[in-house]
Amino acid sequence: MIPQATLSKLRSIVGKENFLDSPEDKISYSYDGTPLLKQLPDGIAIPRSVEHIAQILKLANEDGFAVVPRGSGSGLSGGSVPVENSIVLLMNQWNRILEIDRQNLAVWVEPGVITATLHEATEALGFLYPPDPGSSTICTIGGNVAENAGGLRGLKYGVTKNYVLGLEVVLPNGDIVMTGGKSVKDVAGYNLKDWLVGSEGTLGVITRVLLKLIPKPEASKTMLVFYDKLSDSAETVSDIIASKITPAALEFLDNTTIKCVEDYAHLGLPTTIQSLLLIEVDGRPSVVEEDAAKIIELCKKHNAREVRVAANAQEALKLRTARKAAFSALARVRPTTILEDATVPRSEVAPMLERIESIASKYNLTFGNFGHAGDGNLHPTCLTDERDTAEIHRAEKAFDEIFTEAVKMGGTITGEHGVGLAKMRFLEKSAGDVAIDMMRRIKQSLDPNGILNPGKIFSLKPRCEGPMPKNQEQVKKFLEMGAFT
Amino acid sequence: MIPQATLSKLRSIVGKENFLDSPEDKISYSYDGTPLLKQLPDGIAIPRSVEHIAQILKLANEDGFAVVPRGSGSGLSGGSVPVENSIVLLMNQWNRILEIDRQNLAVWVEPGVITATLHEATEALGFLYPPDPGSSTICTIGGNVAENAGGLRGLKYGVTKNYVLGLEVVLPNGDIVMTGGKSVKDVAGYNLKDWLVGSEGTLGVITRVLLKLIPKPEASKTMLVFYDKLSDSAETVSDIIASKITPAALEFLDNTTIKCVEDYAHLGLPTTIQSLLLIEVDGRPSVVEEDAAKIIELCKKHNAREVRVAANAQEALKLRTARKAAFSALARVRPTTILEDATVPRSEVAPMLERIESIASKYNLTFGNFGHAGDGNLHPTCLTDERDTAEIHRAEKAFDEIFTEAVKMGGTITGEHGVGLAKMRFLEKSAGDVAIDMMRRIKQSLDPNGILNPGKIFSLKPRCEGPMPKNQEQVKKFLEMGAFT
Repeated sequence: MIPQATLSKLRSIVGKENFLDSPEDKISYSYDGTPLLKQLPDGIAIPRSVEHIAQILKLANEDGFAVVPRGSGSGLSGGSVPVENSIVLLMNQWNRILEIDRQNLAVWVEPGVITATLHEATEALGFLYPPDPGSSTICTIGGNVAENAGGLRGLKYGVTKNYVLGLEVVLPNGDIVMTGGKSVKDVAGYNLKDWLVGSEGTLGVITRVLLKLIPKPEASKTMLVFYDKLSDSAETVSDIIASKITPAALEFLDNTTIKCVEDYAHLGLPTTIQSLLLIEVDGRPSVVEEDAAKIIELCKKHNAREVRVAANAQEALKLRTARKAAFSALARVRPTTILEDATVPRSEVAPMLERIESIASKYNLTFGNFGHAGDGNLHPTCLTDERDTAEIHRAEKAFDEIFTEAVKMGGTITGEHGVGLAKMRFLEKSAGDVAIDMMRRIKQSLDPNGILNPGKIFSLKPRCEGPMPKNQEQVKKFLEMGAFT
Repeated sequence: MIPQATLSKLRSIVGKENFLDSPEDKISYSYDGTPLLKQLPDGIAIPRSVEHIAQILKLANEDGFAVVPRGSGSGLSGGSVPVENSIVLLMNQWNRILEIDRQNLAVWVEPGVITATLHEATEALGFLYPPDPGSSTICTIGGNVAENAGGLRGLKYGVTKNYVLGLEVVLPNGDIVMTGGKSVKDVAGYNLKDWLVGSEGTLGVITRVLLKLIPKPEASKTMLVFYDKLSDSAETVSDIIASKITPAALEFLDNTTIKCVEDYAHLGLPTTIQSLLLIEVDGRPSVVEEDAAKIIELCKKHNAREVRVAANAQEALKLRTARKAAFSALARVRPTTILEDATVPRSEVAPMLERIESIASKYNLTFGNFGHAGDGNLHPTCLTDERDTAEIHRAEKAFDEIFTEAVKMGGTITGEHGVGLAKMRFLEKSAGDVAIDMMRRIKQSLDPNGILNPGKIFSLKPRCEGPMPKNQEQVKKFLEMGAFT
């Protein structure tokens, strides 16, 4: 527990109206979008200036408490779940778009701007900010940068890190640093900006973000394709890539997910199909027509039962809903939804889906599968109930095997959600001691007292070095629930 | 000087045929592509395995000497110039392309592969590795990664870091780490791979590189456009970007450079024009035609004297030569060529060129200007003579002003060459104490004894903390030559 004297100091930094510590407030900020993880913070600070943040971090070093930055809390790896002896640093009110620079195709935003809000504002001016996480209507740019969020347009347009031109960040010691800028090329010293992207709030608090825009594609075409066999859809994906077409989206849903989506959104999807692909091409009108025609030909060659092509933007939105609703639709079926993001090289998507299916059946679990087929980023999703300890135990064994398979196939344990608390143990298994040691040394060099989002990604000390730090206890408890120790 | 006992140990690690220390060898490796910098190494080690490198780095920590990795030595910031008490670690014989994975659009290479060799090998299979530094026929991939090299295709395709999927690296303590992989999305822990790209050989020795390929564009069109006024060419560039066309190359040459190129390569360029643009568009044939037509229209609107369009690949090569020959052509004029890469947001290209011109005239210097107009990456090039101390002194004053202007305009002191030794002092002025301190702490955490390419990018210790480390002496000497101290 943070002592009252320290809480008083926090209150005087941000003003008492910006410091919350009622039981209701603490409960509201004790969890994020990740199932099974929960920890009460000792308070919630809403900073109103960069200086407030600097003062809070300095105080954290002096008085010895942890600071956990948070945007919308929509993360899926526990990155913004509080740790013991911590306060939440709530950034979602930093929500202004500060400048749209049309000449340099760049936009300055505060970290609390909702991703979809940025999409709307920039598209209205003829630009596109490509990263498009599934949670775009609720997640924030700050969270996207901290987790290096991916999304539906990754295959063609890349992920968040490809669009971060500059950052203003408060470092763990309270120093304020501005890194990067509007020059597209910049190699002046270590890439501090690129180092902070994806560091999951452990190396700095993001206070301003400069993002790159691109010209909005002139045209696009959206298709939904139905298959009686999953392997046919996988072969279509391979064939599209081999034909050197790069769709803006190339997404798939399996039968379980399709049935849930239809039950939830009533889109008229045939529930007997084994898989569907959502394919979107964009660019110049002539190319879009050529690509769409070629793709339809490939779908038919691989025995597609039906290809639905959107005639207009409204129909495209409806087709896209089939994919966008996947998570929400699956989440309705059972009380607990564990959505993961095991990722493999794109050549391994079909074998990986087969392995997931056989693992699910081995442990007698219901899995829905969907995801970004074009870039190998899958979302195996276990529909379960956290009150059923035995089933949760089996689910954890299943995910353990799934991650092991992904790594074996040259893939990774997380394509776009981050490690946070939820996947720490897997990272320690998959990245190897040398890489973890390197991460630990860098964290130690920038945050020697471990005050900024500690105990995320990796444990602060190697396991053999004496007792686990206090704020690791909850992680340990969680890990011990499974068969992992 | 490294003691003989240590040199013997080095000889026994790599085999005596792979350790060079004759006076001739030491002289050959005492400089790189950067003017004015020179330092004899105590020997040159040619490692034949990753284990050799690990052993050398461990020995460096034990016996206390510095290791300077080197590929072709074509760098322009002194990144591979030896420091005192150092050996050169020569990697240019690691030149195999290990695997081209057509399904996952990825290629594994050793760091000594010449960039142009990789271009040829992948283009023959219908793929493109976009980064295209001006020195592509001599520079190595390892050097490109270490410097995060840019090049002619940066505007449309980005720079080296956008294509590095994975790295095998020997860390300063001799540990070997493999980071990244064929998954396009990967957020498992800190981005070690992205941290190493652009770290200028100070954080690890690169031993294998996994690069991303893209499908080779089906068509391209190359144009050379002549202008009587520099401002007309600058306005054409702005107008092309505003029209939402993204050329693969958008390069410019000023009158001094044009005259030198014509004198050198006899391409039939009119030497009275004030500037020329080399413009290349690529993609699907229909789009290439549309874009080229639109661009020609914009050039004419802005008073282009002539637009030459290549009718075929051979003619395109000839037009491209006008730009590719710029550095070599300027280098013939006077004994010493100082080529810099001050970079500004693209909206500032025209004002920056004006500033450079007035600074050159203030200090009575001959400057040629050329560069990547599309991404703001300029190459102000001073034609001088290092034996003329007074003129060199004036040149350094001029560059000081040029860098100050670039930073003032929201740009950077280096767009694609790196900091190395040549721009350390400017980095310390432009990045600010907080950023430098952060870099220093990270370097210290990974290389506590400062054995790997020390004294590059930033001094290892803040100036106030006691005497300058020994291997900084040469930097100090160089800096004192100018008016900078």
